[in-house]
Amino acid sequence: MSVRVTFEPEGKAAFVLPGSLVLEAAARAGIIVDTPCGGRGTCGKCRVIVRDGCSPLNDTERERLTEAEIAEGFRLACQAKVESDTIVTVPDTSRFFEQRILTAGEGARICVNPAVRKRLIEAPEPTLDDQRADTDRVLDALGGDALTIDLEAARQLPTALRADGCRLTAVTHGDNIIAFEPADTTDHCFGVAFDVGTTTVVGSLLDLSTGHEMAVASRTNPQVSWGDDVIARISHAGSDGGLGELQASVVGCVNEILDELVAHAGLTREAIYEITCVGNTTMHHLLLGLDPSHVAVIPFPPVVRRGVVLPAADVGIAIHPRGRLYTMPNIAGYVGGDTVGVILASNFAERDEPTLAVDIGTNGEMVLGTRERLVSCSTAAGPAFEGARIQFGMRAAEGAIEQVRFGEDVAVSVIGDAPARGLCGSALVDTTAGLLRAGLLEPTGRLVGPSEVPEGVPERLARRVVDVEGGNAFVLAHAEETSLDGPVLLTQRDIRQVQLAKGAVRAGIEVLKAELGVGDDDIAAVLLAGGFGNFIRRRNALRIGLLPPIEHSRIHFVGNAAAAGAKMVLACTDYRERAEAISREAEYLELGARPDFQMHFAEAMMFPEDE
Amino acid sequence: MSVRVTFEPEGKAAFVLPGSLVLEAAARAGIIVDTPCGGRGTCGKCRVIVRDGCSPLNDTERERLTEAEIAEGFRLACQAKVESDTIVTVPDTSRFFEQRILTAGEGARICVNPAVRKRLIEAPEPTLDDQRADTDRVLDALGGDALTIDLEAARQLPTALRADGCRLTAVTHGDNIIAFEPADTTDHCFGVAFDVGTTTVVGSLLDLSTGHEMAVASRTNPQVSWGDDVIARISHAGSDGGLGELQASVVGCVNEILDELVAHAGLTREAIYEITCVGNTTMHHLLLGLDPSHVAVIPFPPVVRRGVVLPAADVGIAIHPRGRLYTMPNIAGYVGGDTVGVILASNFAERDEPTLAVDIGTNGEMVLGTRERLVSCSTAAGPAFEGARIQFGMRAAEGAIEQVRFGEDVAVSVIGDAPARGLCGSALVDTTAGLLRAGLLEPTGRLVGPSEVPEGVPERLARRVVDVEGGNAFVLAHAEETSLDGPVLLTQRDIRQVQLAKGAVRAGIEVLKAELGVGDDDIAAVLLAGGFGNFIRRRNALRIGLLPPIEHSRIHFVGNAAAAGAKMVLACTDYRERAEAISREAEYLELGARPDFQMHFAEAMMFPEDE
Repeated sequence: MSVRVTFEPEGKAAFVLPGSLVLEAAARAGIIVDTPCGGRGTCGKCRVIVRDGCSPLNDTERERLTEAEIAEGFRLACQAKVESDTIVTVPDTSRFFEQRILTAGEGARICVNPAVRKRLIEAPEPTLDDQRADTDRVLDALGGDALTIDLEAARQLPTALRADGCRLTAVTHGDNIIAFEPADTTDHCFGVAFDVGTTTVVGSLLDLSTGHEMAVASRTNPQVSWGDDVIARISHAGSDGGLGELQASVVGCVNEILDELVAHAGLTREAIYEITCVGNTTMHHLLLGLDPSHVAVIPFPPVVRRGVVLPAADVGIAIHPRGRLYTMPNIAGYVGGDTVGVILASNFAERDEPTLAVDIGTNGEMVLGTRERLVSCSTAAGPAFEGARIQFGMRAAEGAIEQVRFGEDVAVSVIGDAPARGLCGSALVDTTAGLLRAGLLEPTGRLVGPSEVPEGVPERLARRVVDVEGGNAFVLAHAEETSLDGPVLLTQRDIRQVQLAKGAVRAGIEVLKAELGVGDDDIAAVLLAGGFGNFIRRRNALRIGLLPPIEHSRIHFVGNAAAAGAKMVLACTDYRERAEAISREAEYLELGARPDFQMHFAEAMMFPEDE
Repeated sequence: MSVRVTFEPEGKAAFVLPGSLVLEAAARAGIIVDTPCGGRGTCGKCRVIVRDGCSPLNDTERERLTEAEIAEGFRLACQAKVESDTIVTVPDTSRFFEQRILTAGEGARICVNPAVRKRLIEAPEPTLDDQRADTDRVLDALGGDALTIDLEAARQLPTALRADGCRLTAVTHGDNIIAFEPADTTDHCFGVAFDVGTTTVVGSLLDLSTGHEMAVASRTNPQVSWGDDVIARISHAGSDGGLGELQASVVGCVNEILDELVAHAGLTREAIYEITCVGNTTMHHLLLGLDPSHVAVIPFPPVVRRGVVLPAADVGIAIHPRGRLYTMPNIAGYVGGDTVGVILASNFAERDEPTLAVDIGTNGEMVLGTRERLVSCSTAAGPAFEGARIQFGMRAAEGAIEQVRFGEDVAVSVIGDAPARGLCGSALVDTTAGLLRAGLLEPTGRLVGPSEVPEGVPERLARRVVDVEGGNAFVLAHAEETSLDGPVLLTQRDIRQVQLAKGAVRAGIEVLKAELGVGDDDIAAVLLAGGFGNFIRRRNALRIGLLPPIEHSRIHFVGNAAAAGAKMVLACTDYRERAEAISREAEYLELGARPDFQMHFAEAMMFPEDE
């Protein structure tokens, strides 16, 4: 039922329903196409090359593209719809700014200024007239009186210095020389950026001399065996030996990803001199072996807020023995370095008009503001959107219905094109919005029963409304379409979970707006980040009231912005200063302590009357 | 034959021959009395309290001391001679400046500004209105945005912070917080200063809140089992696994001394947050596990010159797990941190007139200059003065003749008042000088034979001149006075070794003088430092030509100035800056590369014709 769209040059693929925009398919594949106009077709920025398998050129595209471009196969990603399996090439110039910064060859816009640098030393050889110490010889050659040398590097120096006639390479991290390598290895410098999610850990190998991404690998965070959410992890961390287990578990996962990345690139682990990590505050604490227990107890203080630089070996991460680890600073106990990464990648530092960033993962974090002032908050909204507490809920894995389109019947797209075994968050939003539009779900959240189906509802749709033990339900996949013993349903109880989850996110947004005195019309842009944010249909998110009623075209996908932030601070230390400023200056609103949150929450539980 | 002199308040004792100055006995006990006038009795600075057992008050003392002082038992250490067992109290005000700095209660002159500090934090407890991270809470309380926190300290923080209601103690090292301790432990801060000698390792435990020395302990450097001198050690370091063996060996010794010190003071090793080490460049390298092999090969470059700060645990030293080690900077491959310590403790930074410091240990290091310019050099002079290559030579241990006085016969003082089994360096100088004065040794270094004894030599002296296999010799202890099967002799061959050793030191001094264009009369002070330097009789050192013909009163003992330097940099980081400046600015003259050294050496082999 789905079609395969492969994106070049990465070779990443996504399965989507026929009729989906190329733009959405790209987001699904983790490729964020730049859409300054919000996909209205007015800016012409989202040009991609498609050979066939798409809808015919429309008038908007004819207006925005030159004849030469059309001849080359250019299309607008916000206009072209996928019809069958196809291959799409996304030029660097069409990519979202902060992703492009790391991958493009445009020159001026690439910021490559990593903390780890390699510098060639060509020093004179020792003589009786020049008896300088080996370390002075290299420090003088580097002109670096402010540099210090790690003891283990100093131990290597006599040999490295004499291997090639006082020609050698110093590896520096900030003001520290952390290693020496014989001869000239300056074009061989690598780092890995990690996004340590509650559910998934992703690593990206970067060439630190160019900023280019060489490989990406991911794994399920093995801590899930101690629970799906941060509260379960914190609870286990408080048990005897639990903190050590959780730390060893995630570090093992990081090391496996490192192995995969270096194998893919034909490197060794010792070639990696730095890694950066973003994650929520609990993931951050567990990675560093910091006790997160107070994050779970009022008033929820984290142990560490600021960014941390330390030898990666100190936490068991096996890169070069003296390689370093930088962890993104946090903002508060429930707004972590992942949100700082989102703020960084979303370029709030240059936003003059109020912008809202929403990152829905296992938790939901929201940030509203401008370069002048940022307010943030967090809700435990995520679990429902990640499949938790939904009867047939599951993560976005093979067999998950991930897209649902309503018409005469429902059309569903299943990940891996397999028989359905459940539904993930984006399908949950699609279905809820579809049911509202079809009149099968009331604004109060009540699902109609088989006998209450309004007139005019197509028959095949109406037949999906069923009455099961415990209440009304809607059939997303009939028993014969699933790998289960029965159908995949969305139940009344599930709808209540959706109401709670979307209500919490929306109420958080309302509190942020109230704090800044900002109305819906003042919000220049809504940035949807994170695993879930990338896959929801904007129109459907608006329909269920997850987002305030903001013009569709002002809603943008920014991909895994947290991971993009990790790559940015890896490639360029300038971003670390910005991250520290964000961490220091962004305000955190404790929703539980605000009476207005309860009021907004009660209101936001309802679904909007109409679009 | 010797008498015991006990010095208070330390309780340290020395055995000396009757008739020795209290000043000399004090030096022997490692207590350096201040003698700005060089012991001429003109300054009255060296006042000590002696109850009895000394020569009667002389006119000089009557002139310098008030009647009240005389009534209290005050004497001048440079005038009073020991006659029998006695107890001497040395007031702080009479001590050598740089020793006094660490032990006195005088206020203004004490520099206590250690790298390790304890600071009390009294922070507000977390609330919903104050959700700061634990680390921010303590950093804000310390007003320290520049401070960083060691990961392991951050791991301790949640517990330490809550143990006593946000009242806790931060242990800082420079800008690093290395530990937290619950409640207020600010009056409990300790460090140990080590002098890591080729032969002996000495540790001094200091209370870092006052600068007071609490205990001293020493051990033979166990590396002696791989050879007496640095060349033998370097050679072993080059063998398979040798460097690791040597490092583990000296670190084991340091740890044993630490155990003894903390046991003596009723502390634990974890209470020690910093140690400092001085040592020659080879000892420094072996302690840090740096390959010293190039120090032994022309052009002799060390690996590291500058001072190094690192976690003590990185080299296996077992103080607090995050305690630090500071190693004194070196000057060159053969002028190490011990010499920097001597320069520091000898206060060259305030010397306007040319001063010569001579530190004779296993090696001999010499420094000449002023605050403006310092030149240094090194010779392998030491072994003879430490007993090596002398037939009955031995270190200054029990059974060693350590003082020899010539009269109608020779009177010897044996360490431990035991039967003699050899002689140490100070006795070697005494004997050589005595033989020259008695006419039994010619300026060329030829010992007379039994048939050549000049007229007028007392009979008992003359009988000590003997003819043994291999040449003439002089009997220092007759067979019946020794624990050996025969007598303790000084042989013609031994005299040749003395000539080589003293010739090398003296030639080094002459090269330094020539380099600076300084004559003997320009040298305002000669400072004798180190184990050997403290025990030689100045007049005898002058007689054999070890030192240039400089007025006796300008020669001062400065004790174990290298160890004093280690204590200074432990107690006060201001001295570390001064040490780094000395290391950077002091010039090193490679004697082997200078033709004038050979010329001076040939000349300095001879003994002076007369006093």
